[in-house]
Amino acid sequence: MQKITLEELVAFLKEQGFVFQGSEIYGGLANAWDYGPLGVELKNNIKQAWWSKFVKQNRYNVGLDAAILMNKEVWVASGHIGSFSDPLVDCKKCHSRYRADKLIEDFTHGEITGDGMSNEDLTKFLLDNQIKCPTCGALDYTDIRQFNLMFKTHMGVIEDAKTEVYLRPETAQGIFVNFKNIQRTTRRKLPFGVGQIGKSFRNEITPGNFIFRTREFEQMELEFFCKPGTEIDWFNYWRSYCMDFLKMIGVDGDKLRFRDHEKEELSFYSNATTDIEFDFPWGFGELWGIASRTSYDLNAHQNHSGENLEYLDPETNQKYIPYVVEPSVGVERMLLSVLFSAYDVEDLSKDGKSDSRVVLRLHPALAPYKVAVLPLRKNVHSDKANEVFDRLSPYFACTYDETANIGKRYRRQDAVGTPFCITIDDTTLENDTVTVRDRDTMEQITLPVDEVIAYVEGKIKL
Amino acid sequence: MQKITLEELVAFLKEQGFVFQGSEIYGGLANAWDYGPLGVELKNNIKQAWWSKFVKQNRYNVGLDAAILMNKEVWVASGHIGSFSDPLVDCKKCHSRYRADKLIEDFTHGEITGDGMSNEDLTKFLLDNQIKCPTCGALDYTDIRQFNLMFKTHMGVIEDAKTEVYLRPETAQGIFVNFKNIQRTTRRKLPFGVGQIGKSFRNEITPGNFIFRTREFEQMELEFFCKPGTEIDWFNYWRSYCMDFLKMIGVDGDKLRFRDHEKEELSFYSNATTDIEFDFPWGFGELWGIASRTSYDLNAHQNHSGENLEYLDPETNQKYIPYVVEPSVGVERMLLSVLFSAYDVEDLSKDGKSDSRVVLRLHPALAPYKVAVLPLRKNVHSDKANEVFDRLSPYFACTYDETANIGKRYRRQDAVGTPFCITIDDTTLENDTVTVRDRDTMEQITLPVDEVIAYVEGKIKL
Repeated sequence: MQKITLEELVAFLKEQGFVFQGSEIYGGLANAWDYGPLGVELKNNIKQAWWSKFVKQNRYNVGLDAAILMNKEVWVASGHIGSFSDPLVDCKKCHSRYRADKLIEDFTHGEITGDGMSNEDLTKFLLDNQIKCPTCGALDYTDIRQFNLMFKTHMGVIEDAKTEVYLRPETAQGIFVNFKNIQRTTRRKLPFGVGQIGKSFRNEITPGNFIFRTREFEQMELEFFCKPGTEIDWFNYWRSYCMDFLKMIGVDGDKLRFRDHEKEELSFYSNATTDIEFDFPWGFGELWGIASRTSYDLNAHQNHSGENLEYLDPETNQKYIPYVVEPSVGVERMLLSVLFSAYDVEDLSKDGKSDSRVVLRLHPALAPYKVAVLPLRKNVHSDKANEVFDRLSPYFACTYDETANIGKRYRRQDAVGTPFCITIDDTTLENDTVTVRDRDTMEQITLPVDEVIAYVEGKIKL
Repeated sequence: MQKITLEELVAFLKEQGFVFQGSEIYGGLANAWDYGPLGVELKNNIKQAWWSKFVKQNRYNVGLDAAILMNKEVWVASGHIGSFSDPLVDCKKCHSRYRADKLIEDFTHGEITGDGMSNEDLTKFLLDNQIKCPTCGALDYTDIRQFNLMFKTHMGVIEDAKTEVYLRPETAQGIFVNFKNIQRTTRRKLPFGVGQIGKSFRNEITPGNFIFRTREFEQMELEFFCKPGTEIDWFNYWRSYCMDFLKMIGVDGDKLRFRDHEKEELSFYSNATTDIEFDFPWGFGELWGIASRTSYDLNAHQNHSGENLEYLDPETNQKYIPYVVEPSVGVERMLLSVLFSAYDVEDLSKDGKSDSRVVLRLHPALAPYKVAVLPLRKNVHSDKANEVFDRLSPYFACTYDETANIGKRYRRQDAVGTPFCITIDDTTLENDTVTVRDRDTMEQITLPVDEVIAYVEGKIKL
């Protein structure tokens, strides 16, 4: 059962300061979003969780941060300039613009995906099945044309083909072109992986579903290099690793599923691909793609750049191009699945008196604030509360609130997922103890301030 | 005395896996740089230190993460579309291209800056002073024309004026346009600040000095909103706060200076501006700009958007546009000043035997790895070392090295700034104690593995 609709979530996130419409005072900008004070902390915590588990704590892997602007030849080699495009079609009558493959997908309720069909096949399918314009009902389309999804700009003063550069549509290529540099400087042997977090840009025709599909988004990609022949074992390893990670950070396991790609659906270079899908309010959608990409990417760059990207295996003394397994996930989609899993309205009705609270049951490691420091009475307890804030804030993220009555302040913190509320009252002034309230159980315990750090730190580890 | 030249630093950073040339296998891309396994950790640690001290631990401030792509009207209001440009001039003889203001600055050895001069004044100065083309010696320039520094692209299918969008040239405007949303959702009273870290892009004519000036760069900006009349006090507060921060993270205080702007140098809307400068190998350069910007930015957005951006002061019941103090710094410049401060070659000659070591004296909080886990003998001690790695790595960043002799491995870790080397040997197998070697003193102590976590955590706090 869906606890909250997308529209309700969007309103909730705006109200609480998680996500605002981008450039809102100017009427926004086509599905662009800004992350407010709470959103940026939650997003950072998700990124740090990924970085910890996929880079820092995984002995196989290291990190990278490549530039967004890359040499154009990178996108020639990767195939993005040639074929990273969507089939566009306009209705001649009402001038609405569509992705032809999406028209087919919607018409067949997802049973047939136009993905990979030629322009001719798409046109034929539209006509054969009399798929009319969803806006005006006409069946009168322009020819289908391919529209490249990369944002193009120019570097330098002159705007011509020579100065064209693209905003990267994926972070992965930054890893491939640095493969040799990384392998050499880290003295790594296979298998090893390189993780990266960063912005990518795609000029989507139909962005939508809030932060699910946006033109500017942030990826967390791992390219795992291994010996040919071992890639399916590693594919299975990362397939499980990703699913375990999602459950660990609090994504609802009942809403997750694997979708293994059928043979005919695989890219020509891939010998295994799986999507981890999440049950969003609009249906299951791709959250994490795990693909065994063979030697396709490194081969393409070796051929196009002329640089030797082979690995010399010290055990067999053979040279070969490593195979690659790629788990790739978007920060925003992970955030969305975390939020849909965490949002809860708890019924607190008692003795015929109706009551409820909104509680964001985030894993404490992801919560924007770990602790709210709340003076019971403003002014009377504020100085002491500020002192407590300063003692705790070097250890974990704290917030401070001295407005409204204590019950209302508890509910505010419940709604933004703060796992612990620490109340400063007369007893604190007397003997330096505080009341610690638990978000989920709403139970309270008393602790000396000195013990709060260890208590909280013990509960917020991933 | 400069310990290392820029060229030597660039070579060192490449060799160690800190910074690689962007798109290197394709011959690079005009001063673009990628951060390798060690560079990304160092950069992340610098960003996290700033975020901790300027956002998380500062009770006045909260964070934001706005989109890179914003509504074009933002840049109309901010003045970037109208006047964020450089005066370009070409030599008619050899076709070299210059910034006219830079020609004047170089010719006068920095005594006269062409900043703010009109095209006519610049032309007149070039001719009056017979400033010849530095490349071919001719004195035959084209007319000066203004070149806008924003990267332009198009959103959507059609490439026309209506679909133009820009890559943001600064993160600050994302904060200004969200001022009301943030103030409302956080229920903040003045003074309060909003911090942001993110990529910005400027189509510089003459990028250079490695990562000092690049077209793609990352900013850490704070916009601090306060009551008119209090801004100079807050300006002084943040001016000191920034300098203290730099010294705290290990930037060499002897190489830092304030450069307060003279009245005639101030932007028309600013009533106080200071640069914190660092003594780079090529001379003092701007590291951190702190500017009191009055109500200029919020006023501009209120006027252009028609949205009321006034603040209702609950103490006086007056409405006014808040004043702003902005400390703005680039991640890459901070990184560069940290590296130039930390790099050291220590003379270890003894008894007539010449010896030295490279040691990167990074503050432990910034070091890419806090601990290197080193089995004394490969295979014999590897299993135990892996076990120790897994016990420590959830607490802080660890690396593992089992190649080469132990002395060589110590030196490797010294060169990348790892504060502690932990050696696993026969004693570890016997009684679970390890040798902990200090990077700076090279002294060794013996500790039970269980005590290493607390020992290291106590030393790596900022």
